[in-house]
Amino acid sequence: MRTATIRVNLSGAMPGLSGMTLLKNIRPEPAHDRSYDIAIGPGVLVSLGQKLCAVEARRCVIIADAAVLESHAAQAEAILRAAGIDVTAIAVPAGEASKSVSEASRLWNALAQLAVDRSTHIVAVGGGVVGDLAGFVAATFARGLPLWHVPTTLVAQVDSGIGGKTGINLEAGKNLVGGFWQPRGVVADTNTLATLPNREFTSGLAEVVKYGMILDADFFGWLESHVQAILARNGLADHTAALVHIVERSASIKGSVVEQDEHEHSGLRAVLNYGHTFAHAFETAAGYGTLLHGEAVAIGMVAAARLAQLLGRIGPDVVARQTKLLQALGLATRSIATEQIPAERLIDIMARDKKTLHGRLRFVLPTRIGHAELVTDVDPAAVRESLRPE
Amino acid sequence: MRTATIRVNLSGAMPGLSGMTLLKNIRPEPAHDRSYDIAIGPGVLVSLGQKLCAVEARRCVIIADAAVLESHAAQAEAILRAAGIDVTAIAVPAGEASKSVSEASRLWNALAQLAVDRSTHIVAVGGGVVGDLAGFVAATFARGLPLWHVPTTLVAQVDSGIGGKTGINLEAGKNLVGGFWQPRGVVADTNTLATLPNREFTSGLAEVVKYGMILDADFFGWLESHVQAILARNGLADHTAALVHIVERSASIKGSVVEQDEHEHSGLRAVLNYGHTFAHAFETAAGYGTLLHGEAVAIGMVAAARLAQLLGRIGPDVVARQTKLLQALGLATRSIATEQIPAERLIDIMARDKKTLHGRLRFVLPTRIGHAELVTDVDPAAVRESLRPE
Repeated sequence: MRTATIRVNLSGAMPGLSGMTLLKNIRPEPAHDRSYDIAIGPGVLVSLGQKLCAVEARRCVIIADAAVLESHAAQAEAILRAAGIDVTAIAVPAGEASKSVSEASRLWNALAQLAVDRSTHIVAVGGGVVGDLAGFVAATFARGLPLWHVPTTLVAQVDSGIGGKTGINLEAGKNLVGGFWQPRGVVADTNTLATLPNREFTSGLAEVVKYGMILDADFFGWLESHVQAILARNGLADHTAALVHIVERSASIKGSVVEQDEHEHSGLRAVLNYGHTFAHAFETAAGYGTLLHGEAVAIGMVAAARLAQLLGRIGPDVVARQTKLLQALGLATRSIATEQIPAERLIDIMARDKKTLHGRLRFVLPTRIGHAELVTDVDPAAVRESLRPE
Repeated sequence: MRTATIRVNLSGAMPGLSGMTLLKNIRPEPAHDRSYDIAIGPGVLVSLGQKLCAVEARRCVIIADAAVLESHAAQAEAILRAAGIDVTAIAVPAGEASKSVSEASRLWNALAQLAVDRSTHIVAVGGGVVGDLAGFVAATFARGLPLWHVPTTLVAQVDSGIGGKTGINLEAGKNLVGGFWQPRGVVADTNTLATLPNREFTSGLAEVVKYGMILDADFFGWLESHVQAILARNGLADHTAALVHIVERSASIKGSVVEQDEHEHSGLRAVLNYGHTFAHAFETAAGYGTLLHGEAVAIGMVAAARLAQLLGRIGPDVVARQTKLLQALGLATRSIATEQIPAERLIDIMARDKKTLHGRLRFVLPTRIGHAELVTDVDPAAVRESLRPE
C-alpha cells in the first residue's frame, strides 16, 4: 500500500542549555526540534507506538471523540500498550458543542486527578473538534504537554490536524479562545476514512477543493478529473490511492504554508481562511452543529467567489467552475439555513471575527483558480450583495 | 529620581515575510522582536502612553485588580487616553480566587462583547493575580493579544510580572492551567509600593531574599545591611533608592534567567522555584488566600533549607542566616496554618506539582548562600522530617 510522510519544518528549536553558566549541575532536558512528521496512508496507525517510544514517552492520555472510542481510539490504545506505554483514555462527546470552556475545564480537572505531569503525552483521536479541544488542553495544562494528532476524519487529516491551531468556541464566535501548539507528530491513517459517514466525508472535501482554489491549479484540475475515484473512497486499490493523494497533497500544501507563517503574522497563512470568514458567520448564526464545518466552508467559498466577481476580480467562469466541482463532490453550494439569516447579522458577526483588524472587513478572494489574495476594507454593500439568494 | 531600564533579550523573533513567495500582494504585519524592556522607578508609569504609541497601539483594554481600579488603573487609563489611545477598563475582584476558570471565562466573553481583535493591547494593572490571569486571557483570546504588565505590588514587580508565565488555578493545584506569553513591556512604578498594605509589601520581600539565596550572595549581603532602609519604603530619597535597587536587582536576575531558559527546558529556570514546591503545597492545602504567596514562599524556603541541611548539603549556619534575614524583614518563618497540615497530605500535593517528573519529588536546594541546585528523587522521609515543627 502506498503511504507518504510529509515533514513540517519549523524554525526556533526549544532552547537548550547552550551558553548557560550560572548553574553547572543541572542536567538539561533534551531540547527538541519543533519540526514534525505527518504520516499518511492505509494502516499507518500501527506506527504510533514506535513513534512515542522514539521520544521516550512512558505515559499518555488519549482524548478521543466518543464516536471512535471503541474503534480507532481502542486500536490506538492497544498499539500504545503493546509498545509498553501506560495509557488512559478519556472520551469527549461528539459534536462542536464539546469545543467549550466547560469541556476544557472538565479535561483540565481530569488531567489533574490523573496527576499528569509534563512527561505525559496527549494523543488526540478523532476529528477537528477533538483535535482543537485536546490541543488547547495540551497547550495549557501545566503550561504545555507534548501532543500527537491521530485525525480520523477527512477534514482533520487535510486541515485541522495540521498547523498547530487549537481552540474552543465562545457564544460570540468560533475559536475565539485558543493558541498555537504544534504537535510532536501526526498519524493520518486513511483506513479510518472508509467508515466515515457520507456527510462527514463530503464535508471534508470542501477543504480539499479550497487548497486547489487558493494555491494549486493543477491539483484543482486533478480533482475535477478524479471525482468518481474520490467518492468511491474504499474498495479498489486505485480508489485508496486517490484518497491518499488528496490527503497527501492537501497536507503538503498546508504544511508548507504553516512552515512559512506559523503564527499568522505575515498574512500568508491567512489565505487558508478562504471561504472561512463567511463560513464562521454561517456557523455562528445558524447555531453550532446545524452545518458541518466543511458544509459551511463550501457555501462560504461560493459567497467569496461571488464577492470577488462583484469586485471585478474574477469572471463568472471561475465562480462556475468552483461551484461545479463542489456540486460534483456532493457539496451543497447554498442552504436555506444560511439564506434565512439576515445579511446584517452575518456582517456583524464577521466584523467581530478574531482576524478582523480595527473592525474592517477582510476577505481572502480568488484572482484565478490556484491563486487568492487578502483584500481589506471591503465595502459592506458588496458583502450584502454576495449573500443575496440568486 | 533614579530610574532603571532592564532589557530582556529573547531569541526567535516572530516570523516575518522573508522567503515567502507564494503570495505577492500581502502587506506583512511587522515582525516584532520578542525582547522587551522593564522600566523601573518612581513615576515611570507616565511613560506608558508613549510606549504603546511607539508600537502603534490604537486601542487597549485594561484588566485591573478592583483594589487599584480607582487609583493606579485610573491613572494608567488617563495616561493612555491622553496619548490618544481608546481605553476600556475591566475590574477583577482582588484575591487568589480570581485566578479561576470562571473568571477567565468571564473576561474572554467580555473581550468578545467588546469586539476585541488582535490589534487590541491588554494592559494588566495590579499584582500577581491580575498579571497571571490577564496574561492567560491575553495569551488565549483570538490566539494571542499583545500584553503589557503594570505591576503594582512588590511581588509582581520582582517576580510574577517578569518572565512570561501566565496561569490560573484548579482545585487540585495552583497554576495548573496556563502558558508562556511574553509581554511587550513591563512598567514597574515604585511609587505604587508606597501605599501597599504592610502584609503585601513584606510578602514580596520573600521573593527578593530568594534571588539572593539562589543566585547572588552579594545581593543577599546587601539586603542584610539595608533592612531598615527597605522597611522604611518611602519618604527619604535614600529609602526610595533602596526600593528601586531591590526591584532592579531582582528583575535583572529574573530577566537573565528567563533569557537563558524561557520555557523551563534546561532546568536553569527551575531554580527560581526555590521554596516554591513547599509553598504551593502550603497554599493548596491551607486553601488559596489563607497565606499570601510570599508568606508561603518564606516558610517554604525555611523548609527547603532544613531539607538541604538534613541531606548534608549545607550547614546550620546557612539555615540560620536565611531565617534571620527573613525575620528581620518581618516575614514569618513558620505558621500554625502549615504546621497543622499532615506531612503526608503536603507530600501528596507536591507529587502532583506540574514540575514533577514521573511522580518523583524534586526540590531546588541551596549549597551555600548565592547558589542552589535542582535535586531529584528526594527521599519522602527527609521531606517529612523537614516539615516537622521544631
